[in-house]
This record gives sequence, structure tokens and C-alpha cells, in this order.
Amino acid sequence: MSTPVRDERTLTLADFPVHRPIPTRWSDNDVFGHLNNAGYYQIFDTAINGWLGEVTGIDPTRMPALGVVVENGCKYFREVGFPQPLVVGLSVARVGSSSVTYRLGMFAQPDAIAALCTWTHVYVDLETRRPVEMPEPIRKHLVAVADTA
Amino acid sequence: MSTPVRDERTLTLADFPVHRPIPTRWSDNDVFGHLNNAGYYQIFDTAINGWLGEVTGIDPTRMPALGVVVENGCKYFREVGFPQPLVVGLSVARVGSSSVTYRLGMFAQPDAIAALCTWTHVYVDLETRRPVEMPEPIRKHLVAVADTA
Amino acid sequence: MSTPVRDERTLTLADFPVHRPIPTRWSDNDVFGHLNNAGYYQIFDTAINGWLGEVTGIDPTRMPALGVVVENGCKYFREVGFPQPLVVGLSVARVGSSSVTYRLGMFAQPDAIAALCTWTHVYVDLETRRPVEMPEPIRKHLVAVADTA
Amino acid sequence: MSTPVRDERTLTLADFPVHRPIPTRWSDNDVFGHLNNAGYYQIFDTAINGWLGEVTGIDPTRMPALGVVVENGCKYFREVGFPQPLVVGLSVARVGSSSVTYRLGMFAQPDAIAALCTWTHVYVDLETRRPVEMPEPIRKHLVAVADTA
Repeated sequence: MSTPVRDERTLTLADFPVHRPIPTRWSDNDVFGHLNNAGYYQIFDTAINGWLGEVTGIDPTRMPALGVVVENGCKYFREVGFPQPLVVGLSVARVGSSSVTYRLGMFAQPDAIAALCTWTHVYVDLETRRPVEMPEPIRKHLVAVADTA
Repeated sequence: MSTPVRDERTLTLADFPVHRPIPTRWSDNDVFGHLNNAGYYQIFDTAINGWLGEVTGIDPTRMPALGVVVENGCKYFREVGFPQPLVVGLSVARVGSSSVTYRLGMFAQPDAIAALCTWTHVYVDLETRRPVEMPEPIRKHLVAVADTA
Repeated sequence: MSTPVRDERTLTLADFPVHRPIPTRWSDNDVFGHLNNAGYYQIFDTAINGWLGEVTGIDPTRMPALGVVVENGCKYFREVGFPQPLVVGLSVARVGSSSVTYRLGMFAQPDAIAALCTWTHVYVDLETRRPVEMPEPIRKHLVAVADTA
Repeated sequence: MSTPVRDERTLTLADFPVHRPIPTRWSDNDVFGHLNNAGYYQIFDTAINGWLGEVTGIDPTRMPALGVVVENGCKYFREVGFPQPLVVGLSVARVGSSSVTYRLGMFAQPDAIAALCTWTHVYVDLETRRPVEMPEPIRKHLVAVADTA
């Protein structure tokens, strides 16, 4: 018996284990009066790095290996923008030996997902920029919130 | 008997009547690892417009007249940056018939001012972009926090 | 007889029919010293809208219908950043009645693709924000450069 | 006999010895449909660092000392914005032992200055962040274009 596929547009903030409030800025809105698409990526980047910094206790700009973005993408369902406060829902879809894929939702209202994003970081050496094992202080927190469905 | 001039570097958050917390973002930091100067202006803009929106109850992107920046400038005293949360201290130095000059401080710590900014908005008509009387719902809140020293 | 799948990492600027030079900015680089991922989206957005504006002769901020982003995503292959000048390669993968999907490449060197992006705009009414037929002056230029492989 | 003070609004691109073309981006425009004030600072920053990089032959993100902004400010005279191409006029108002003050103009049309900016960099040690002598390869190019009126 197969599980019916969940319509992504029905996801709510409660479907994500980590919640990161991030306010909007005046300059986030473009001429259409809504959050420009690049602004979503700035905010998701901040949610990921801010959360990692807090749970690991390591300054996210001084991690022992760089988490570089190798792929990301968003689907946009609803317009949001300044001055709305936003909350990012963060979950971990997959943890590999040197990479992690996040699934992130943007919410102006907890029951109305505005955008859904996937985001893959690969950890690389600070000097060589070659992939390395993900630092253990990071891995343990990713595993703790990883989807296990 | 003259008042000794206050050294601006000794200003604290308590010297400003309005306090607006604004977190930093990953992309605020430049290659030097600190908040890029343009980021200060984005954050001060957000503090002013967010505060005006809250006290007037009018969406800051839909005010009855546009507050356009005719002059602004900052002095930078200390480095700040992501992931530090920041607080903007806002005061009103001068209210004219169509213009207002703010004085704003950036703080990562309440007793250590990171930057001091002056910022002048002139209210203009939405269509003609010619100066108009400042909308009354805005003026009354500016006057309420204006410096009267 | 099947066509072998082309490795995306081997794409060159010559594989894209439209070329849009876009210089980098100091603030594009993040603490890792390379173009932040959100910067790629800003630059691709500029390439699309700048090109549409030039070929249609219509100010891209005043088009008769809004092209809103419903989905976009990037794969990042190589680091680029200020002060390198960049060139965006633009092609049109699919033109629908109200939507268009672009395929875009970022190049610091013509033979070394730095990132590959897909980007879907849906045209919506300026007021209702409901999908509408794509304006004809836009469609004809999209069709002219659409992939017909 | 005194020199009459030049009205800043009458400055033209020809009044600046260095010209740096910098195109606008879609996301530069805010909801008012014009270049947001923070965008001016991003563009002036790019003009200064891009010019220094070219004339010295040193990557501006890897200079032997950091040029940190200690003060900057702009007066805005005319609206500009995407998709207009802009040109920054750059001049050097003062060269000190460790600091330099630039005077910069923003132009969408060579005879109509859009904004006038002053900008002071102090050179600091990469580690201690204490002021140091300005690197000689930088100084000689600043002196070459300094105002000597």
C-alpha cells in the first residue's frame, strides 16, 4: 500500500523540527513590492548557518571546514515581504559523509508555506577546497534532526 | 557657560529613545569578516521604516507620501558582523515641515557604539516627487521622540 | 539510438545563444572570498530582465504583466567572485502560454562553466496576480532563442 | 579674492579624473522603483576597490593592508535605477599617511550628477586592525589623481 504523495503546498511550520525567526528588511522588497527571490536564499543561508553556530557553539564564519553550496533551489508559492516577520522551518533530508541536504520552508504565517527550498552543502578543506569528512560537532546535530520517515 | 561637546564614541544605547533589534545575515559580512558598510545603511533603513510602520499603523511601503533619502552618512567606530544580533538606537534630531533628520546608533553591545549615522528623509508626492507636507500621522510620532536638548 | 547525456560541467558559453556581461561587486563576495549563492540569483535575474528590456524595448520594471519567479535553482561547479567580470549565457528551455523556463550559465572564463541555473517565470496580472497570457512582445523573443533540439 | 563656492549639483562627470562604468541590477531598485540608498554605497565601494585593483595590479581582496571605511556619506540629487547603466566619477580629495578621502559622483547622464559621496578609508594591519602606513603601490596612484586645487 503506497503512501499518497504529500502536496508540498500543504506543508506547515509544524512539519519542520527547527524554527528560525528572521525579520525582513526594507531592501528585501523589489519593485513588485515583495521579497526578491535572491532574498529567500540570503535568509535560508542565514537560518542554516545561524542554527549550526548556535547548536555547535562554533562561530559559523570560523568552522573547521567550509560548507560550500553545491546545489540549491526554491519553489515559490506565496508572496511575502517587508515588513512581515518570517520564520524559516529547517529539516535535514539527508546526511552523507561530507555533504548534507537541507529542506527549508519560508513562513509568514505558520500554516501557509511561502516557499520550499532544498539546499546541499559539501564540506571542503579551508585551503585545498577539496571535500573532507564533515566535522563531527556538525554531524551529530544534523543527524539529530534528520528526517527518518 | 558652554556645554562640553560629547564624544560620539561614548554614546550608549541608553542615549537613544527608540531601540530596534535587527539580526545580522550571513551575506552581511564581506571578505574582511565584518558587516559591509552598505549593510549598515540597509539596517538603519529597516529600523526607521519598521518603526514608522509600527507606531503609525501604516504599511511602510504604502505611506501616503514617500520619504526619500536626500542625505545620509555614517562614522564607523567598531567592527560588528554576523552572527551577532544588533540593536539600532533611533532618535530624531530635527523635524521640519517636509523633512526629518534621524540620528542612529548601531550596537552589538549596549555600551559600545559601533557606528553613528545621520539620515534625512524628505517627504515627496507619490506622483510628482515634489516635496510635500509630512503626513500628520508620521509627524506626531517624530515629534514625540525628538531631541529637545 | 539514444543521444548520450551531455555532462553539464562541460557546457561552454558557446552553448548559449544570448550572452550578457555582468561585472561583480565588492559586496558579492562573502567571508569565503567568493560570490555568495544569493549573488548568482541577483545576477541571473539581471541578465533575464536586462535582456528582455533590450529586445522588447520595454522598461523591464514596467512590463504589461509581471514575470514572477515560481521556481529556480542552481548547481555550482566553480568558485567565482569580485573582481572578476562575469558573462551570463542565457537560453530558453521551454515557452508555455503563460510561463517560460530559462537555462542560464555563469562564466568567468568562456570554457569553464561556474554554475548552471534553471529559472521559471509565470506572467501574472499586475493587480490580481493571477496567471495571464504572456505578452506577445516578450513571447516572440523567447521563441526566437528557444532550444529546438 | 575668494573663489565662489561651486554648487555640488552642477558637478559633471568631467569634474572627476577617473570614470568607472557600473551597470545596475534588478535587485538594486526598491519598492519606489529607484536605486536604494545602500546600493549607492555598494557601487561606490566597487568603484574604489575595482580601480585600486586595476591600477596597482593587486587583487583588491588581498591587499597587503586592509582599507577599512571609517566614515562615508552621500547627498542624493536625482533618482537613478535599473536598467540604467551608471558611471562613477572618482577623485581623491586628501591623502594622509594611513588614510585617504575619496570624492565620488554617481552619473546616469554625464551632465546630471545623481549623488555625491565622500568616503574615507584607513589602512589597518590584517591581524591587529591597527592603523598602518598606506602601502606604497596604493599611495602613488592616489597621489596621481589627487585634487591639487
